[in-house]
Amino acid sequence: MNQDDTKPNIKNEESAGIPKGLLVPFELVGGKLSEVDEFIRAQAHAFDPGVEGYISYVCEISGKRIRPALSILAGGACGQAGRPQVKIGTVIELVHLATLVHDDIMDGAQLRREMPTVSAKWGSTLSVLLGDCLFARALEMASEFEDNTISQRVSSSASAVCQGEILQTQRRFDLNLTHEEYFRIIGMKTGSLFATATELGARLAGADQPTQENLRDFGMKVGIAYQVYDDCLDLVGKEELAGKTLRTDLAKGKLTLPVLNLIASSTESQREKLNKHLLLQEPIDVDTLAGIADYDGSIDQATATGKEILAEADRHLECLPETEYCDGLRQVTGYLGSLLDTCLS
Amino acid sequence: MNQDDTKPNIKNEESAGIPKGLLVPFELVGGKLSEVDEFIRAQAHAFDPGVEGYISYVCEISGKRIRPALSILAGGACGQAGRPQVKIGTVIELVHLATLVHDDIMDGAQLRREMPTVSAKWGSTLSVLLGDCLFARALEMASEFEDNTISQRVSSSASAVCQGEILQTQRRFDLNLTHEEYFRIIGMKTGSLFATATELGARLAGADQPTQENLRDFGMKVGIAYQVYDDCLDLVGKEELAGKTLRTDLAKGKLTLPVLNLIASSTESQREKLNKHLLLQEPIDVDTLAGIADYDGSIDQATATGKEILAEADRHLECLPETEYCDGLRQVTGYLGSLLDTCLS
Repeated sequence: MNQDDTKPNIKNEESAGIPKGLLVPFELVGGKLSEVDEFIRAQAHAFDPGVEGYISYVCEISGKRIRPALSILAGGACGQAGRPQVKIGTVIELVHLATLVHDDIMDGAQLRREMPTVSAKWGSTLSVLLGDCLFARALEMASEFEDNTISQRVSSSASAVCQGEILQTQRRFDLNLTHEEYFRIIGMKTGSLFATATELGARLAGADQPTQENLRDFGMKVGIAYQVYDDCLDLVGKEELAGKTLRTDLAKGKLTLPVLNLIASSTESQREKLNKHLLLQEPIDVDTLAGIADYDGSIDQATATGKEILAEADRHLECLPETEYCDGLRQVTGYLGSLLDTCLS
Repeated sequence: MNQDDTKPNIKNEESAGIPKGLLVPFELVGGKLSEVDEFIRAQAHAFDPGVEGYISYVCEISGKRIRPALSILAGGACGQAGRPQVKIGTVIELVHLATLVHDDIMDGAQLRREMPTVSAKWGSTLSVLLGDCLFARALEMASEFEDNTISQRVSSSASAVCQGEILQTQRRFDLNLTHEEYFRIIGMKTGSLFATATELGARLAGADQPTQENLRDFGMKVGIAYQVYDDCLDLVGKEELAGKTLRTDLAKGKLTLPVLNLIASSTESQREKLNKHLLLQEPIDVDTLAGIADYDGSIDQATATGKEILAEADRHLECLPETEYCDGLRQVTGYLGSLLDTCLS
């Protein structure tokens, strides 16, 4: 795969009205991300010929490769953006792909990035098995590193992702969910793979323990802020720009940050009305929410929280020397900040 | 957990009319198997408190712990039946439990060992995630060994199990399935975890490479023979003795060894009739099969093949010194041989 092949992603994002903020960091690591793509595609050959075709299909779900990009940038910021960072980025992306395949079964999703999902194409039995295969392959690759910590971190973050999903499922429609619990759940569900991506990128570059921890915290916060953005987008985004079905969280009983803010800022009588609507288990019209309580304020408050978390993330980079990679990491948080801005009322 | 707690399994088997052939090897490793049980139960605490309860439930699916028993016996036969063998046995049993949780979703099974399955109790979403958590935890434990080969083998055999299941699903109702393909598929689906159990038990005891390979081959053949027995049992077993629903393989289009034998030994006109029945995708009355071709002969031939494979397995033990553990491994194959005998016409 040549480097040009990574560009359509960036173009798609631009054409989807997303700020150009990621262009610089992605150009910096573009060559390495092409290696990640090649590496992911090559994994299909590690499987039985009868299974290879399915794996190839999943590996064509290209995505933005944000996690591998973070591994490579974090490694670069610690002195190495080379083969080990490409490999760990690939491992983490395979874990991510495995969770997507399993998510699509649970959500009954038909399309992902304009391609039929594995479960829509071949049914849930095959999706369960295929996700498992990808996951096993990722762990096999992780255990090829001499340093055991690598596979320990990868497997424990994979476990955290699944546990986060379980907790989220468990707390659906639970109007007593606290902000603290929300952040813990999204930290597990989304933050942990980001955190492992940056931590291990740095570790493989030979960074010392405190630097690894700073980069882990950076990744965790970037992941959490990304999830906050995604949660706001579900309420205020435009489907044609987001490229996915929106307004599904509330129908599924997912109480996200803006909704928790809305509940917290309501008077008792507003809260009663809100709860009644939230428990209907039906898609809720945003205008209905806005008619009850301070909807815009809740979104703006969530956006501000997301930006505070990004500022905290940036502070974890202060231990690093000024390099284009360190700057690239800051541009990632800058980009996420500008995405959050698009959600403001 | 005290040692007595392992005995009900053995008693259940006896009361189910299964020969006492496993009593000696299981008594030899009984104390260590209690440690495996404790270890498995303790894993629940490695999870978030909100997830722990589900994991505990799965870990109560006690089973025969045949894979951990093989790890401990193989280790003992190579000079060590200690903590490392208990730990690798636990890891492999957790992978096995993860595959059971996922299998039950795919089969729509309601009960497993007289307990409601996870999917019957909490639905398929939770089952997918819970299987993933168990799998991730197993891999995390595997990567705690200093020797990377341990986690590589565990993840590659986990991948083989899933790939074997995919191939089996793919070849349902495929009347061109060859005997060779059947053995390759069951080798992946069932043999690979058995092979890893014995190989790594030996490796952790410090066995040399040829001995590890012999024990790997031994485990692989025991696993394959076990699957041949299970396939025969599905056709000829009595449900009240087997403790599970039988006569389901053909309805699902699984062409097992006795059925492949039946097809191979039929005349062209018999084969036409058989194929017609097999493609109905309905439970087939065994008498119908027997009315068409040499049903009893096909079962007896599969049984004989299973016993030949067990004899080959035993030959892989010839490199080992004569110890009670080596004898215990032979008693496992002897026990499987006597199970196969119960399927004879």
